[in-house]
Amino acid sequence: MKEEFTEFIRSLQDEICKALEEIDGKARFVEDHWERPGGGGGRSRVISNGNIFEKGGVSTSLVHGKMPEALKKNMKTDGESFFACGISLVIHPENPFVPTTHANYRYFEMYNNKDERIDHWFGGGADLTPYYLFEEDAVHFHQTQKTAADRHGEDLYPKFKKQCDDYFRNHHRNEGRGIGGTFFDYLRPDRNRSARDWMGFDIDMGKAFLPSFLPIVEKRVNTPWGEENRYWQEIRRGRYVEFNLVHDRGTLFGLKTNGRTESILMSLPPRVRWDYNHQPKPGTEEEKLIKVLQKPKDWIT
Amino acid sequence: MKEEFTEFIRSLQDEICKALEEIDGKARFVEDHWERPGGGGGRSRVISNGNIFEKGGVSTSLVHGKMPEALKKNMKTDGESFFACGISLVIHPENPFVPTTHANYRYFEMYNNKDERIDHWFGGGADLTPYYLFEEDAVHFHQTQKTAADRHGEDLYPKFKKQCDDYFRNHHRNEGRGIGGTFFDYLRPDRNRSARDWMGFDIDMGKAFLPSFLPIVEKRVNTPWGEENRYWQEIRRGRYVEFNLVHDRGTLFGLKTNGRTESILMSLPPRVRWDYNHQPKPGTEEEKLIKVLQKPKDWIT
Repeated sequence: MKEEFTEFIRSLQDEICKALEEIDGKARFVEDHWERPGGGGGRSRVISNGNIFEKGGVSTSLVHGKMPEALKKNMKTDGESFFACGISLVIHPENPFVPTTHANYRYFEMYNNKDERIDHWFGGGADLTPYYLFEEDAVHFHQTQKTAADRHGEDLYPKFKKQCDDYFRNHHRNEGRGIGGTFFDYLRPDRNRSARDWMGFDIDMGKAFLPSFLPIVEKRVNTPWGEENRYWQEIRRGRYVEFNLVHDRGTLFGLKTNGRTESILMSLPPRVRWDYNHQPKPGTEEEKLIKVLQKPKDWIT
Repeated sequence: MKEEFTEFIRSLQDEICKALEEIDGKARFVEDHWERPGGGGGRSRVISNGNIFEKGGVSTSLVHGKMPEALKKNMKTDGESFFACGISLVIHPENPFVPTTHANYRYFEMYNNKDERIDHWFGGGADLTPYYLFEEDAVHFHQTQKTAADRHGEDLYPKFKKQCDDYFRNHHRNEGRGIGGTFFDYLRPDRNRSARDWMGFDIDMGKAFLPSFLPIVEKRVNTPWGEENRYWQEIRRGRYVEFNLVHDRGTLFGLKTNGRTESILMSLPPRVRWDYNHQPKPGTEEEKLIKVLQKPKDWIT
């Protein structure tokens, strides 16, 4: 499964980068290879200052070796060594009417001191962070995620949709980072699904990313925008930074255990603004967004 | 001492705001009063879009009540109730040749369930975050801090200078946030100094803030700057955000225990930028700064 999933994330990286370059029409992804001192490495691909995409990263990594002490403590395990691979992406469009999106799909294995596998699981998800709310876009994104998930059981989307709302939350502002999507982790073989079933699920969810996001880009990219919209986008990007640096487990764990800082922080938006106590005016589109972020909504009814 | 120190921080807030308004010549501080549900409150003062100061906050707070569970856990104490007051400020000038600065001075008391005081201490410090390094400015800032500290013992500045370098460090980048200053906490009565001595020290350090910072503003504020300098400033401001949101104990504790988010995050810079893997060119002023941040220097020899 290691090989199969690694193969999948690499081809998904190629596919996503190609599709984003095509729609952008100007900027190209620049690739960086990096190695992890303890074993493995990754290929980071970054796009910037495009026609559509102001900044974006689509990275894969495959790391393995001795379990770092911090990871053992974090996971409360006595596993001796591990293997992890995944794809992770964040796209920040320039036009404030085009949403930011994030997705990742990953696989983890853990071994004892005899090199026997003692645990393994899949994880991932995709979520949308609009600056202006178009309900039909939210419905499209969620519906595409749901359709992919439903093929593996109708219990999955509702559960992983809720986990996404719960996880991507700026608790200190009582706001969601965005309007959700799916989030799942520790998908281990159980009564209903084998590891292979979960891999099939993770792969299908990965394949559902482009169809979830691209049609929204196409629909919104020609919406005219002005300085006021840009201002609001930069304020909201500040909230994105707050989530990633204050709450996101992966980011914090990476930064505190000597991960590759530039790859971890590739997710941060390019231009950001913090005003003191910025509040949208009542009755505006900006306020409408905040209200939905404060109280997650069921987009599919 | 509660009354005396509270009196001091309020008059220091007035003095600092007045001096900053005078030198800015355009913007005025806007005041917000807020109350803490559990007891006490604060007055936040914010300046923005001035001739010199793009964003700044100078706040005092005086809070008291039952010890929040998170605080008890954090401090490993069974104290039942507390009193805390302090002044905290961050100033972000517009001109990239004028450094950002931060300072705070605070006092904490803790009581048992019979309302007897079981612990109390002073804390605080001031530090400088330049975007371009002028050694004479660094020396001036440190010398002014040292002169104030020396009046209370020559052991204090070296110790608190080192604590500042150690504390304000972006470990994930192996860089200091700035070029340091002083940082001290848990100043409890001991063999050498009574609580009253420490209060005198804290007050003198507070009074040393303006003379540490204002002469540097005066000296640099007319330095012409261009887009390139601004770009670099915005990149560096990103590092400031990273420190405050990832490492700063006060910020994180505040955000995770229902503190007033807008007052806590008043410290964040107004406009910020994150590029993937931004590296200054060899031999430039930008690179010179990084080298000093990587390896803290003794400014007073």
